[in-house]
Amino acid sequence: MSSITYTAAPNPAATIAHERAQTTFDTDAMNLFLEGGDPQHVALIKETLLQLERDPVFRTGPQYYDLTTPEHREETAKKIARFAQYLEVDARNNNSAATKVRLDFLSVLDPQMLSRTQIFLVLFLNCIKGNGSPEQYRFWCEQLKANQMRNMYGCFAMTELAHGSNVAGLETTATLDLDTDEFVLTTPHIGATKWWIGMAAHTATHAVVYARLVVKKDTVNDYGVKAFVVPLRDANHDLLPGVSVGDIGAKMGRHGIDNGWIQFNCVRVPRGYMLLKFAQVDREGNVKDSPLNQLAYAPLINGRVQMVADSFRFGARFTTIALRYAVARKQFGKASDGEEKQLLDYPLHQTRLLPSLAATYVMAAASHKLRAYQDHVLEQLGLVRETDKSGLNDAISAMKHLFVVSASLKATFTWLTALLIDECRQACGGHGYSAYTGFSKGYEDWVVQCTWEGDNNVLSMSAAKSIVQALKKGKDLHSDLAFLASKSLSGKLPILSSFASGVASADHLKVILKAFHGLIIRAGENCIVVLKENGNDWDELGQLQVGITRVFAHSYALGVFLETIPAGLQPQLRAIAELHALSVITSHAALFMEYNVISSENYPSVARRIAELNRFLRPQVIGLTDSFKMPDFLINSPLGKYNGDIYNAYFDTLKQQNDVSITKAPYSHVVEGMLNRSDLSVRERNERTEQVMRILSK
Amino acid sequence: MSSITYTAAPNPAATIAHERAQTTFDTDAMNLFLEGGDPQHVALIKETLLQLERDPVFRTGPQYYDLTTPEHREETAKKIARFAQYLEVDARNNNSAATKVRLDFLSVLDPQMLSRTQIFLVLFLNCIKGNGSPEQYRFWCEQLKANQMRNMYGCFAMTELAHGSNVAGLETTATLDLDTDEFVLTTPHIGATKWWIGMAAHTATHAVVYARLVVKKDTVNDYGVKAFVVPLRDANHDLLPGVSVGDIGAKMGRHGIDNGWIQFNCVRVPRGYMLLKFAQVDREGNVKDSPLNQLAYAPLINGRVQMVADSFRFGARFTTIALRYAVARKQFGKASDGEEKQLLDYPLHQTRLLPSLAATYVMAAASHKLRAYQDHVLEQLGLVRETDKSGLNDAISAMKHLFVVSASLKATFTWLTALLIDECRQACGGHGYSAYTGFSKGYEDWVVQCTWEGDNNVLSMSAAKSIVQALKKGKDLHSDLAFLASKSLSGKLPILSSFASGVASADHLKVILKAFHGLIIRAGENCIVVLKENGNDWDELGQLQVGITRVFAHSYALGVFLETIPAGLQPQLRAIAELHALSVITSHAALFMEYNVISSENYPSVARRIAELNRFLRPQVIGLTDSFKMPDFLINSPLGKYNGDIYNAYFDTLKQQNDVSITKAPYSHVVEGMLNRSDLSVRERNERTEQVMRILSK
Ligand SMILES: Cc1cc2nc3c(=O)[nH]c(=O)nc-3n(C[C@H](O)[C@H](O)[C@H](O)COP(=O)(O)OP(=O)(O)OC[C@H]3O[C@@H](n4cnc5c(N)ncnc54)[C@H](O)[C@@H]3O)c2cc1C
Ligand SMILES: Cc1cc2nc3c(=O)[nH]c(=O)nc-3n(C[C@H](O)[C@H](O)[C@H](O)COP(=O)(O)OP(=O)(O)OC[C@H]3O[C@@H](n4cnc5c(N)ncnc54)[C@H](O)[C@@H]3O)c2cc1C
Repeated sequence: MSSITYTAAPNPAATIAHERAQTTFDTDAMNLFLEGGDPQHVALIKETLLQLERDPVFRTGPQYYDLTTPEHREETAKKIARFAQYLEVDARNNNSAATKVRLDFLSVLDPQMLSRTQIFLVLFLNCIKGNGSPEQYRFWCEQLKANQMRNMYGCFAMTELAHGSNVAGLETTATLDLDTDEFVLTTPHIGATKWWIGMAAHTATHAVVYARLVVKKDTVNDYGVKAFVVPLRDANHDLLPGVSVGDIGAKMGRHGIDNGWIQFNCVRVPRGYMLLKFAQVDREGNVKDSPLNQLAYAPLINGRVQMVADSFRFGARFTTIALRYAVARKQFGKASDGEEKQLLDYPLHQTRLLPSLAATYVMAAASHKLRAYQDHVLEQLGLVRETDKSGLNDAISAMKHLFVVSASLKATFTWLTALLIDECRQACGGHGYSAYTGFSKGYEDWVVQCTWEGDNNVLSMSAAKSIVQALKKGKDLHSDLAFLASKSLSGKLPILSSFASGVASADHLKVILKAFHGLIIRAGENCIVVLKENGNDWDELGQLQVGITRVFAHSYALGVFLETIPAGLQPQLRAIAELHALSVITSHAALFMEYNVISSENYPSVARRIAELNRFLRPQVIGLTDSFKMPDFLINSPLGKYNGDIYNAYFDTLKQQNDVSITKAPYSHVVEGMLNRSDLSVRERNERTEQVMRILSK
Repeated sequence: MSSITYTAAPNPAATIAHERAQTTFDTDAMNLFLEGGDPQHVALIKETLLQLERDPVFRTGPQYYDLTTPEHREETAKKIARFAQYLEVDARNNNSAATKVRLDFLSVLDPQMLSRTQIFLVLFLNCIKGNGSPEQYRFWCEQLKANQMRNMYGCFAMTELAHGSNVAGLETTATLDLDTDEFVLTTPHIGATKWWIGMAAHTATHAVVYARLVVKKDTVNDYGVKAFVVPLRDANHDLLPGVSVGDIGAKMGRHGIDNGWIQFNCVRVPRGYMLLKFAQVDREGNVKDSPLNQLAYAPLINGRVQMVADSFRFGARFTTIALRYAVARKQFGKASDGEEKQLLDYPLHQTRLLPSLAATYVMAAASHKLRAYQDHVLEQLGLVRETDKSGLNDAISAMKHLFVVSASLKATFTWLTALLIDECRQACGGHGYSAYTGFSKGYEDWVVQCTWEGDNNVLSMSAAKSIVQALKKGKDLHSDLAFLASKSLSGKLPILSSFASGVASADHLKVILKAFHGLIIRAGENCIVVLKENGNDWDELGQLQVGITRVFAHSYALGVFLETIPAGLQPQLRAIAELHALSVITSHAALFMEYNVISSENYPSVARRIAELNRFLRPQVIGLTDSFKMPDFLINSPLGKYNGDIYNAYFDTLKQQNDVSITKAPYSHVVEGMLNRSDLSVRERNERTEQVMRILSK
């Protein structure tokens, strides 16, 4: 019948194939750049992905989006057990690089599995390594085989119901009992209940517990928060006496993690269970305190560095989905060939998505650099002996700088990625709201990254404080902060006053970077003035501190990115760098104009230049997303399919997950009962009919 | 034991009670203002809330956050069936006001239930009323009792897999068969599959189907998209022949809605099933077309107006939670009494939350005004006869204006509310991520409002287009747009150049409103210039259009708000108005500076003034949130409890929902199996020991 052939079906796959063919650069070379430039590492990634893709336990697919919480919990546990087997093999092969790559990609494949593993392998083990003596590490981690994920599963019990960011205010106590030479761990009241502790509910056998060290001799002495190893469950996986544990229950996302609360009811552990690298208590209750209490929180830094890497990978995943969709989907306005226009040909759509793509590229470079720096600092800290005063001081100041950089990047990029996922979802219209397209679980799992292991606002305030203090000091600056000494950038003259057009140039990018630096200096100088006036009340500067930290994080990332651009890919990568930088300026326009880093007369040029860069990058979008080399099984979204056959893939997914032969819901009787009910008057036994009313009111 | 009494438990309830006692205004009077100023209406709200709170079917509580999708679907169906009974009684009492209030609050209590009802009562029935003849309405809605939710359940089948925003491009066909005098409805290909249709999967008996009217006489004539009533299920609730339906499956939120896809396979309906108020086809296939095709989409406007009301109610719910928490929660920095500081005493926290509170107040006023205007316009359209040319023209131009205002407010306020919910969640730290605190379901259910019944970007572009066209025309302006004629606001001089301090004044607020108007005019003039240069390509202006629409929506709301401030509440309400206005300027700072509406030198005054207003409002925050009079059962969050006893409420919730006596997970064997596994070498049957290697490599 002709009505069936009246219009032709859309052919998105052809559109994608057509654009892919237009790519003007080498996507392998681009991928090498994105992965940090080492071909061996890229080869390792390929191997790892192959193993993940074909491992039945790690299979992905739309069923993932239909799992209930109990199912997520069980699947996650199975994935962890499977991962533990890879871990053993990697360890035997002395291939810790492989383990890292595995974890990086598992973080995309299933972030809830990653954090359940990471809290143990990174927070718990690093805490023992960093805060314990070599003997403590050797016993728990090597002898008991925690590092093989055998016998022990450690959780990280820092946060309490009433205290999160303010770690120094935690209220769980570890009181030394001088008679028995034990610590007595106690939760004094509801507010001190350990809260949110990942894997406490059903998995962990041990916890690193952050508690106040209390020694009672003549008076009660509170030595502040220290870390203790506390067993929670025995080898039969039964809760030990005195330990109360419960499930935190329903969350926004990460349903696969069994977060729990813990109360300690006079739980006794031997004195040797306090981690004693930096602080020690002897048999008589004499305390030798830590040179820097914050060292106890160092394990959190690894988590933050991982989140920067995650920002890159999640950015890659979601921009790939939204951009492939934006190329494949057509809506409105006939283009020249009589077809509707592709979404990505609307300038508004370009402005919504291309800056996210650019940000993802820039985050990649920053993440590699940050990780390398972290490895270096932690190695330094690990090698230093407690007796080596000057070595310890160097290590501590490196740690402090690592804190500033990792805190800034963690806060800035996890926020950016949250917005990125949401914008990508909205850019897919209604289909972005389908759980099968990946956005909803992606977003719900993601956003906790803005809160945990350091709330983003709190981290940003604290990082900016260090930056402003460095500016004030003005000397002995870490090379990342050397720009703070550039007196020429302070003052009131515009720094970014001309705008490039055409091909993005290295020189112009340097000026933009200077503008970022200038902004930090000027805003920092303003902080110093305000602090002088307000009696050093940093709290009043909160909002400005957040701004400074963000611009710093972007300037750091941009600097790294510009340094690593390889020769063959300059046109694309410089355009990407400039697009990202100008987008950052746009989102902080008020700051840039307020400090006249860019004048308000010049400001309209930013939008014009962004539009120009968008047009330049537009035809390369498929190539630029292909360069992430994110395979379909990791993308796990019909809208992001490599072959572009989005509508068939999406419809098939729906039919696979929802049996079409079932046309009535299990609760159909409720609906049918409502529709088929009799008239109100009948159901009221006619008690209100006029006739009856006459009888009743007689 | 003394370690237990070493520190005192927090007492958040006392803190809240203390601040509540400091309220300096009458919260009843404030509530009256928030509800639109009619005491009878406020009384009706109280009655309705009492009925909702005590109705077992509508009960709320933490279990709501633990429901699975099938449970949500069933609960939602039960709530709808219960609501249908209230509806009958309201109808008998001639009390449509009560029905409206019920729906408004059900929208907070369970948004998925609301939309499942609303699509039928508002989209479906209004579509028949607005697009059908009086006889068509009388038959389906009155005689068949659809308006009592009996016999029929209607869904609204507009969107297709390949076409959403571009409604004119829909591809489902309704081809007139001249032989049988029937329409043949057909889904020509996968792209034309009706998609996302709420209640299609399991509930609906009928659909209003938007399909192309095709008549084949000598040639194939396509008359564009019209609306048809098509039965989907018979009275036994079985799918009718030719109708294929399936479940859309897992979504980001609103799990309780059974969204479905529909394919029509030569489904025949009588010619009289086309809604014929504006377009008709006679027995010979002659078509008389509609004066304005968009009239067919008018039912969507009701939905948009409802979303503006929802924005107010959701803003009220989530700011109440976050602000009560911000007052009750203490963290860091000892205050003068030796206690830690309340979160809301940090200026950063004030800047994050108080503008949201202010926005909620302003949205309240705007929503009442918009709803009144809508009722007026729809009445006008309902009364006009098809033969009354000039009456029809007036009605159409009123409709067009209603479209502009409702589209701007829908887009601007649903976006604002999405950000508001997210910021409120983050402001509650980790606890905001607990599903029991309400944010996650709130957010996931909310964000689709930015997409459905008109994507926000598409609506914004289209509203701005009308505004710019009105500016160009410059005469016969609707009173809401009369400001466009103020030539004095165009040009380049700053409009907002001085900043008030102290008590917010009516005069200064008028200047701020002028600044908003000036921005719209200047940006609009810029559009006109660009259009002249680029050959009238509106697409290039997309981003600017979105900005114009937002500022217009805020200027409309602010104008309404300022007009309705009652005498007794001026200090608080003017401060709220100014705080909201300055926050809008902050979020559009680049635009305001670019057009020099406010100069960049003056810009720092905005932040200073915001900080001052925050300090002024800070002590009244409990009173200002109490004024919403949102009862605990609607807030449904332990962090937002009226009495402030947040920690106990939260802990009790967890224990109620997660049986503490179950200490092992059902999948514990997976974990235990992993922990208790033997060494790799053993599990490998020692195949890799050196001894064996020696044997094997001989
Ligand atoms: C899913 C999940 C898993 C977790 N897993 C673990 C775990 O395994 N182990 C563990 O120990 N913890 C865990 N946490 C806890 C997490 O680390 C904390 O939630 C986080 O550190 C923030 O602390 P908080 O929730 O107490 O927020 P708060 O510190 O109470 O902060 C609340 C709000 O106030 C603001 N604020 C606080 N102080 C200031 C200030 N001085 N100035 C301005 N604003 C301020 C913050 O920005 C925030 O928005 C987890 C949390 C979640 C949600
Ligand atoms: C849960 C849910 C329930 C729904 N219920 C119903 C229902 O009951 N009945 C029904 O008929 N529909 C329903 N819908 C569909 C909904 O109305 C559409 O999703 C919505 O209208 C947007 O259309 P789209 O998804 O096709 O997006 P598209 O139109 O494809 O837009 C995709 C993206 O492209 C952008 N874009 C599109 N055109 C342009 C342009 N010209 N310029 C710049 N940018 C552009 C948009 O801003 C958007 O971000 C529902 C959707 C959802 C998610």
